Amino acid sequence: MNFPFTAIVDQEEMKLGLILNVIDPSIGGLLIMGEKGTGKSTTVRALAELLPEIEVVKGCRFNCSIKGPFCVECEERLNRGDTLEIEFKKMEVVELPLGVTEDRVLGTLDLEYALTMGKRKFEPGLLARANQNFLYIDEVNLLEDHIVDLLLDSAAMGMNRVEREGLSFYHPARFILVGSMNPEEGELRPQFLDRFGLCVEIKAIVDKEKRKEVLKRRIQFDLDKEGFLKAWYDEQERLKERILTAKRLWHEIEVSDEILEKIVSLTAELSLDGHRGDIVLLKASKAYASFEGDKELKTSHIKKILAMALRHRLKRLPFEDPKEEVKKLYEITQLL
Amino acid sequence: MNFPFTAIVDQEEMKLGLILNVIDPSIGGLLIMGEKGTGKSTTVRALAELLPEIEVVKGCRFNCSIKGPFCVECEERLNRGDTLEIEFKKMEVVELPLGVTEDRVLGTLDLEYALTMGKRKFEPGLLARANQNFLYIDEVNLLEDHIVDLLLDSAAMGMNRVEREGLSFYHPARFILVGSMNPEEGELRPQFLDRFGLCVEIKAIVDKEKRKEVLKRRIQFDLDKEGFLKAWYDEQERLKERILTAKRLWHEIEVSDEILEKIVSLTAELSLDGHRGDIVLLKASKAYASFEGDKELKTSHIKKILAMALRHRLKRLPFEDPKEEVKKLYEITQLL
Amino acid sequence: MNFPFTAIVDQEEMKLGLILNVIDPSIGGLLIMGEKGTGKSTTVRALAELLPEIEVVKGCRFNCSIKGPFCVECEERLNRGDTLEIEFKKMEVVELPLGVTEDRVLGTLDLEYALTMGKRKFEPGLLARANQNFLYIDEVNLLEDHIVDLLLDSAAMGMNRVEREGLSFYHPARFILVGSMNPEEGELRPQFLDRFGLCVEIKAIVDKEKRKEVLKRRIQFDLDKEGFLKAWYDEQERLKERILTAKRLWHEIEVSDEILEKIVSLTAELSLDGHRGDIVLLKASKAYASFEGDKELKTSHIKKILAMALRHRLKRLPFEDPKEEVKKLYEITQLL
Amino acid sequence: MNFPFTAIVDQEEMKLGLILNVIDPSIGGLLIMGEKGTGKSTTVRALAELLPEIEVVKGCRFNCSIKGPFCVECEERLNRGDTLEIEFKKMEVVELPLGVTEDRVLGTLDLEYALTMGKRKFEPGLLARANQNFLYIDEVNLLEDHIVDLLLDSAAMGMNRVEREGLSFYHPARFILVGSMNPEEGELRPQFLDRFGLCVEIKAIVDKEKRKEVLKRRIQFDLDKEGFLKAWYDEQERLKERILTAKRLWHEIEVSDEILEKIVSLTAELSLDGHRGDIVLLKASKAYASFEGDKELKTSHIKKILAMALRHRLKRLPFEDPKEEVKKLYEITQLL
Amino acid sequence: MNFPFTAIVDQEEMKLGLILNVIDPSIGGLLIMGEKGTGKSTTVRALAELLPEIEVVKGCRFNCSIKGPFCVECEERLNRGDTLEIEFKKMEVVELPLGVTEDRVLGTLDLEYALTMGKRKFEPGLLARANQNFLYIDEVNLLEDHIVDLLLDSAAMGMNRVEREGLSFYHPARFILVGSMNPEEGELRPQFLDRFGLCVEIKAIVDKEKRKEVLKRRIQFDLDKEGFLKAWYDEQERLKERILTAKRLWHEIEVSDEILEKIVSLTAELSLDGHRGDIVLLKASKAYASFEGDKELKTSHIKKILAMALRHRLKRLPFEDPKEEVKKLYEITQLL
Amino acid sequence: MNFPFTAIVDQEEMKLGLILNVIDPSIGGLLIMGEKGTGKSTTVRALAELLPEIEVVKGCRFNCSIKGPFCVECEERLNRGDTLEIEFKKMEVVELPLGVTEDRVLGTLDLEYALTMGKRKFEPGLLARANQNFLYIDEVNLLEDHIVDLLLDSAAMGMNRVEREGLSFYHPARFILVGSMNPEEGELRPQFLDRFGLCVEIKAIVDKEKRKEVLKRRIQFDLDKEGFLKAWYDEQERLKERILTAKRLWHEIEVSDEILEKIVSLTAELSLDGHRGDIVLLKASKAYASFEGDKELKTSHIKKILAMALRHRLKRLPFEDPKEEVKKLYEITQLL
Repeated sequence: MNFPFTAIVDQEEMKLGLILNVIDPSIGGLLIMGEKGTGKSTTVRALAELLPEIEVVKGCRFNCSIKGPFCVECEERLNRGDTLEIEFKKMEVVELPLGVTEDRVLGTLDLEYALTMGKRKFEPGLLARANQNFLYIDEVNLLEDHIVDLLLDSAAMGMNRVEREGLSFYHPARFILVGSMNPEEGELRPQFLDRFGLCVEIKAIVDKEKRKEVLKRRIQFDLDKEGFLKAWYDEQERLKERILTAKRLWHEIEVSDEILEKIVSLTAELSLDGHRGDIVLLKASKAYASFEGDKELKTSHIKKILAMALRHRLKRLPFEDPKEEVKKLYEITQLL
Repeated sequence: MNFPFTAIVDQEEMKLGLILNVIDPSIGGLLIMGEKGTGKSTTVRALAELLPEIEVVKGCRFNCSIKGPFCVECEERLNRGDTLEIEFKKMEVVELPLGVTEDRVLGTLDLEYALTMGKRKFEPGLLARANQNFLYIDEVNLLEDHIVDLLLDSAAMGMNRVEREGLSFYHPARFILVGSMNPEEGELRPQFLDRFGLCVEIKAIVDKEKRKEVLKRRIQFDLDKEGFLKAWYDEQERLKERILTAKRLWHEIEVSDEILEKIVSLTAELSLDGHRGDIVLLKASKAYASFEGDKELKTSHIKKILAMALRHRLKRLPFEDPKEEVKKLYEITQLL
Repeated sequence: MNFPFTAIVDQEEMKLGLILNVIDPSIGGLLIMGEKGTGKSTTVRALAELLPEIEVVKGCRFNCSIKGPFCVECEERLNRGDTLEIEFKKMEVVELPLGVTEDRVLGTLDLEYALTMGKRKFEPGLLARANQNFLYIDEVNLLEDHIVDLLLDSAAMGMNRVEREGLSFYHPARFILVGSMNPEEGELRPQFLDRFGLCVEIKAIVDKEKRKEVLKRRIQFDLDKEGFLKAWYDEQERLKERILTAKRLWHEIEVSDEILEKIVSLTAELSLDGHRGDIVLLKASKAYASFEGDKELKTSHIKKILAMALRHRLKRLPFEDPKEEVKKLYEITQLL
Repeated sequence: MNFPFTAIVDQEEMKLGLILNVIDPSIGGLLIMGEKGTGKSTTVRALAELLPEIEVVKGCRFNCSIKGPFCVECEERLNRGDTLEIEFKKMEVVELPLGVTEDRVLGTLDLEYALTMGKRKFEPGLLARANQNFLYIDEVNLLEDHIVDLLLDSAAMGMNRVEREGLSFYHPARFILVGSMNPEEGELRPQFLDRFGLCVEIKAIVDKEKRKEVLKRRIQFDLDKEGFLKAWYDEQERLKERILTAKRLWHEIEVSDEILEKIVSLTAELSLDGHRGDIVLLKASKAYASFEGDKELKTSHIKKILAMALRHRLKRLPFEDPKEEVKKLYEITQLL
Repeated sequence: MNFPFTAIVDQEEMKLGLILNVIDPSIGGLLIMGEKGTGKSTTVRALAELLPEIEVVKGCRFNCSIKGPFCVECEERLNRGDTLEIEFKKMEVVELPLGVTEDRVLGTLDLEYALTMGKRKFEPGLLARANQNFLYIDEVNLLEDHIVDLLLDSAAMGMNRVEREGLSFYHPARFILVGSMNPEEGELRPQFLDRFGLCVEIKAIVDKEKRKEVLKRRIQFDLDKEGFLKAWYDEQERLKERILTAKRLWHEIEVSDEILEKIVSLTAELSLDGHRGDIVLLKASKAYASFEGDKELKTSHIKKILAMALRHRLKRLPFEDPKEEVKKLYEITQLL
Repeated sequence: MNFPFTAIVDQEEMKLGLILNVIDPSIGGLLIMGEKGTGKSTTVRALAELLPEIEVVKGCRFNCSIKGPFCVECEERLNRGDTLEIEFKKMEVVELPLGVTEDRVLGTLDLEYALTMGKRKFEPGLLARANQNFLYIDEVNLLEDHIVDLLLDSAAMGMNRVEREGLSFYHPARFILVGSMNPEEGELRPQFLDRFGLCVEIKAIVDKEKRKEVLKRRIQFDLDKEGFLKAWYDEQERLKERILTAKRLWHEIEVSDEILEKIVSLTAELSLDGHRGDIVLLKASKAYASFEGDKELKTSHIKKILAMALRHRLKRLPFEDPKEEVKKLYEITQLL
């Protein structure tokens, strides 16, 4: 029994960043920067708990969605003329441990099967488990580069292709990538930073009343978990409904030419590398508009999202003087 | 035959830190900082010897408690309709050697079984042995980071989940984590420091009379172990009873709103990262209150526990000038 | 469904560099230097999608061309008097992951076959898959030296010879090598630089209208992929035809003695090491002439190609001050 | 045929340090610091040769003493009701080579047995061979830390517990640990230094007459080994008798309260870490008293032992200026 | 179809260095120092193509010459009374890749044979393939020291002896070792430099007419390989004949005492280490005399060879200031 | 066919150092310091070629001498009552390659035998091959420390004891250890230096007449090996006889007390560490006396040997200023 998402005190930006990725998973994940002990992992787990179950092909070892795309095995079943049945599964937060090996991430040859049956079979890795789920990496800046690489590639393609040990296999790997890092413990290469869709910064709460509230809710939860969950039930259901509605409405949001003009002006002003910043800002703003229940993308939506979409793409200054960065983003917002 | 816990001269803070973790294991372990040769490991073993036997599911390879949660194997037995019987085992101090591998910590595939029976079976690691016991790490600051990581994760979740080599297994791993370190031999990353519940500092005894007492008791013990144990029997039994009583009473301690206010004010004053400091201070103070036989949490309890709960969470100054640290904590105590 | 090649906004030099290599694969590949997020990998994939299918020997595990040269297995079939049948395959972009091992690049012993059949069999590696295709390496400057070595050797010989673990095998490995790198993240040894046929530098687009165009096309594509592809169908077909025509005409281009004189004067002026610069400049200019539909190699063709053929071969100054480099190349062009 | 212990010229402190450990093995071993070529290893071997054979359980692979404690296998035999017979074995000096692995030290799974019999069996390591013998480590300061750790832990507990590869095994490991080191080639961590019971410093002999004596005895021994041994037979027997007598009398030595007072004052004056110094000084002095044939522990015994018990425990100055150290110890002795 | 050796423009010293080693393989190989892209590897391959086929024992896996010495397997056949038949093989350039392992160089146990037949068999390595052929190492200065070691040892002994994994095997390994290096990318240890028989320095051609000639021949070759080879056929045959004649005549060249005197005076003047310089200068000069069709070794031959025999043996100054080196060698030549 | 030992020009000290070790192998080997290309390895091989065959137990895999001590296998045969027959073998120079592993040096488990026969068998390593032979290490200063350690330990004990992988094996390993090093390429730890019995320094010959002689003999040998060997036959036989005679007479050499006095005075003057210098100087002088055919050890013998016995044991100055060293030794000689 996890602590309920809606009972988490404060940390609004982190919570919004997660929700937007749920509404439009093509936003490309969330990077959470901040001090230890701020409940990053707890928050992700709490959101997964709140969301409805995922629909997977019954018996599929790779969590294939019933709507496709499919893994090699599901495709074989379809080719044989089998009908794929549906199955529901609790959403999961797959955590990637530091020191994880390529094998465990990608999957590998099933040795037991090979030895006993004399045939090769693919053994799912963490990317298979993460399909349609969250993939959480604590201290992503401490992960080895080639593993980060693998994850970002799979995340970008939505597909995990494995070619090795004579195996040729692929399966969908559509997950919401959430990384956390403490910038004081080492940076992430700009190459990687850029590939996280959004980025939020969190700090411990300083307001005393809120801190007390944190402590109180914690005691209540520890003393009587079931009672606590019951008390928050309605709030949880309300948020779940709102997210599901936003997911349905999102592709109907209208984007005017002026809005595009504004986005391009913003990023030109900041002289960002490449075009990823433009695209993510557009997508996340649309997701936010739909979460707000609006039907048209407005400047106010962009203002809200600006910092989390561009903060980690500012040229070379992200950590050197964060205040300068904030100033820059603030000035930019004035242009809108 | 170990030296009796109650016959250990002085070192009251270390002994209290251990006892509080026994009363409320969710406090999250104890970090002992201090010079070599101060009997850290001996003290932990002595406490384990004093405590009553643990109750485990008969035949369970993971020391599952009869009250659950259960390991995969116990769950399978329950699902088959089997009744789980009870078995008593001497409490143990599982020591984690430097250079230990992930395999030995987490457990691994039982190769022999796989080769002869053609089926996979999970082979318990040190975390299985440590379930319901103490896990002791000498010189925790010299352990490799990814091992510390594993331990702290398991400790936090109370569960060891293993996903690899095609194995998917979990079992409870509820242990009292005790680490020791000599700060002169390298620090522990703040990330790790924060995750130990309590932290005590020990020094060798300088008082001559006490030193002589140490020596005398040692000679007596060496010359006639059985006689020595008999002489300390009553003292040992008294402490055991007191701990067991505290364990039973602990969840009845009342916590007033003023006390919460005081805790939050304290930690705000110290500008600690995150909320773990608040929570541990609250929990350990409650455990102390129950050890003292009180029914209500009072300021005096918090004063007693303050240093061991917050010492290692002070911002960036823990080792640079310990005197400053002490001063800070002292000033804070005046606020109570 | 990939984004269409012809719908990619701007980045003309990169697109031309790729096309020239398709026209004359002996040019020796393309190195793309530039910032992240400029769609390097997308562009290569888009070109592969546009090109016609490749013709391979049916059943050949090494993508042997029906016109030869052949792999050991195809040769054995020919020696047995078998007729090799033809098969068509979609062109592919084989991506080389960082941290790839020699085994996966070259191919290796098929262990399963060896264990069950008691005979050795060669298991194709990435070079086999890359035969008649593109081989793409992102961040080639971060790849280990000995892997770069392997690739460049195979690329130069058009053949992959493997002698190890008692295996003696060879198969054709004729691929278009495309590497990308961000010069800010480490250089490539001059030895390697020189062996890429062409080299282009790309930057993110700064022109606002073009950026907006990028964003617009992206939205259109995301909202209605099939409609978008249909809209660009004719443009795609036109480019495909033009490339195929150029491939046929290329070997008929006439090269006058004066043109040779000019090439040699240019490279002498730049005091390049070795003769590879001369040869590539000649070949790429011929490919460009045929792409332009000309029958004779003219000074204008050489002017167009000069920078991409020689930029990375300039003595020791390539990255130190790129402006100096540009100046040098510009002055040289005046000589033509 | 080894050179006889009693024929070794000079080096009295090293010889006494070894003998005291034989009389009371709980002293905790000897660290020999000194230049190369001073016969350290020869001296240890010579003492082992002189001592009587050890009594072991017949057929026990772990050199279990007939008086216990026992290894798992001996315990199983006792549980089956078997009688353990006695067997005599020559005392041995087990040498630990640099670069030794954990496996060889602790013992490991007997693979042959596992493969042929399908059952696990423990294969003894060097600690099993060392049981009831000497364990000698040349250049202990060059040994890897985790191996030193293993040795010191086993030495402290007198037991080797192995938990890995699915094996759970223990056997007694009571050995006299002798380490040698040349301080010029790197220091030993203070943590390790402290855990050697005694420490002596040796130097090559400078006195010409003694050097000549060394050379003469060497020639005599080389030319006629048997004659030489015969010549020293009586001297050897006398020493052996004296050691055996001391071993019997040692536990009867009386220790007055004044003596304890003196020990504690000494170590307080030197502000040593922990209590190990006090305890070792007491034990070694008792062993020396019994070697001298005395029945009471006197100040003169402590004076004799002081340097070898405390030299390596002095705070931070052991190697920096050895003369200062000697001075300190000398001044301290005046207090007695 | 390779580019013909005689059609290679310029680079006379490198070509002569290779030819001399073909005439007298005991000269000990050639080290080529120079910039990238100067056709080093192409030139070696072209020479191998021009030379006549080698005579090997039919079926021998180690390219044993029919004249001996023989490998273990050929010796066994001779001992059984078998007659060894002759077989002709195209000469080969075996290239040693960077990162090659000892196993692949020396050969190793044939695992397949061992597993299926239960007997050990030696599996030939690159040294077996190189027997009677060229062994080419690009960038020899980047090769690991112990591999360079293996090669130079085998080259010196003309024999590859393998003692490991229970195998005891030997076979002749008489190859012409050709190494190339770019001195700007790291030096070769003097120990290794000295063991290459000859050393040449090459530079790219600067003469424009020659550069044009390079380009022209390249185009001609690319457009019509067969025609090009036909055009150079006579030139190729002439060189082949001349080399074969030189090989026959070489051992009849007369060496006067005055010539020896001159050689020794030269090397004494240069104060070279050891005697290898003297011997190589003598041998290479003899080979050159025979290539020139002379019957007596003259001062002029020595003058021609001096630089390539001694350049890399000059004391400590080889790379520091090459001009000084040239000057030294020039002054020395005046002595002749 | 090797170059004959007696035909090697000059290098008298190195040749004598080798011969003395043949006469008394307990001297402990020879370290040759000097430049490359001075024929160190050739000289050792030439001496091995000259010496008579060794007598080994027929069929013994460890070259056991018929006079013992014996390996485990020979002992087992003797215990079974078998008679050991004699066999003659050519003396061998076993060369230790850089990068050699512990396995290959010590020997290891015979895996093939274990797998097929289900029993463990020891597979001999290089130390077994070296028994009764020369063990030559080129560039001993570049060898890994733990390998040098193994060699020196085996050399000192004359026995190779292996305890691992469940194997317990020993066999005699009595070899003459010859190491060479170029002091410019890194030093040897003093610990190791001291354990080589003798040490010589060699330089290339500067005398022109001698250099010419080297060259002449080399040509003669190359042109007609058999003729050359015949010409030197008598000289070779004479030296062989002289060495064999010396071996027989050596133990009869008389050593007066005055001579001992002189040795001890010398080494005291030089303040050497330990006693190894004294002992080696004595032994090598005795061997020299017997090589000279004398029956008594005289001052002149010691003078001759002084430098090679003590040069590498001088305190801390061996390489810093070799002239100082020579001076020191020279002054010392005056004392005799």
